[in-house]
Amino acid sequence: MINYPNGKPNKVISSLKQELDASKKEKKKIANAANRGMDFEHAVNVSNDFYRDEDRARIIKRPTPIKIVKVDYSKMKITEAYFEKQSTTDYNGVYRGKYIDFECKETKSKTSLSFHNIPSQQIEHLKGVLRQGAIAFFLIYFSSLDEVYLVDSSIIINRYEDKEGKKSISIDEVRRLGHLVEQGYIPRLKYLDIVDKIYF
Amino acid sequence: MINYPNGKPNKVISSLKQELDASKKEKKKIANAANRGMDFEHAVNVSNDFYRDEDRARIIKRPTPIKIVKVDYSKMKITEAYFEKQSTTDYNGVYRGKYIDFECKETKSKTSLSFHNIPSQQIEHLKGVLRQGAIAFFLIYFSSLDEVYLVDSSIIINRYEDKEGKKSISIDEVRRLGHLVEQGYIPRLKYLDIVDKIYF
Repeated sequence: MINYPNGKPNKVISSLKQELDASKKEKKKIANAANRGMDFEHAVNVSNDFYRDEDRARIIKRPTPIKIVKVDYSKMKITEAYFEKQSTTDYNGVYRGKYIDFECKETKSKTSLSFHNIPSQQIEHLKGVLRQGAIAFFLIYFSSLDEVYLVDSSIIINRYEDKEGKKSISIDEVRRLGHLVEQGYIPRLKYLDIVDKIYF
Repeated sequence: MINYPNGKPNKVISSLKQELDASKKEKKKIANAANRGMDFEHAVNVSNDFYRDEDRARIIKRPTPIKIVKVDYSKMKITEAYFEKQSTTDYNGVYRGKYIDFECKETKSKTSLSFHNIPSQQIEHLKGVLRQGAIAFFLIYFSSLDEVYLVDSSIIINRYEDKEGKKSISIDEVRRLGHLVEQGYIPRLKYLDIVDKIYF
């Protein structure tokens, strides 16, 4: 008889089986994640964390605004609340003394970014900060191509407000008018290199 | 007999009594509000609204971060959530191309602002944005004096980090090192005039 480490063959077998099951599940999860492309928001956040830790910039995600209706004050627990529309962009902060403001958009399309996901308040907000001298842009992730582009907000605003326009921007235009953001390990998205190049 | 307009004296009397009661309540409310001093946060918000409408600056209050635990997706209703600590300041934005960041603090004390209400994350955040070239300050409201002061964040940071210090700043120091913010009707708090004077 084989000399099992703890002398209980059944226990060892069931433990190995469990381990194998977990490993298979993990493998599947990784494969799914790879097919799905990156988690764009997460990639932007960890890039900002890196830039902060390197003391290169301070860019912060704004919390999602939430309308609070009921609070159980004895437990400081919110028991009824609703998501509200973000009336600004998702990210803002400071870089080289300048105010930076941007919005991230993601699309599965290989051919264009539709504007249906850009609320008009976001466009108004961007116009407002531009008038104050902000650096403002969109980071657009084409997940099927796994490509991220930085496009200056004035380009998107012009398209958005073009009454004859298609309410979208094609990948060709994005490539021509925007800038491919290099992806790496750390920072995940080297978007400040583009900011350096085009705004300073 | 007096000729009541609708011919029903009791109804007129009770209606007048109701009106008088409401008026008294309203008077009491106004008096209470006056004694309590202004609603500081509201005053800052309406001042920012005015500056935005005048296209002079874009300064926005960050939503309170909330940790969402349970959501009823059928109704898009949040059913369990908790308040999280703000790890930044309450306000940021853009003015004359520069990044602006500030925190509002209120005290009933006539003699000093205690730092017990300033979390260390806020100090870290301010140090971080200062290193990137931000304009960063505190607006301090001494409600018993009905006076608002703008104090540069570096002054507060130094005091905060002084191990021998009193963990507070006295009204005398605030008056000597800070700047009294003029109050008015519109904008309610003319704090950008101080910003113009000391940062540009």
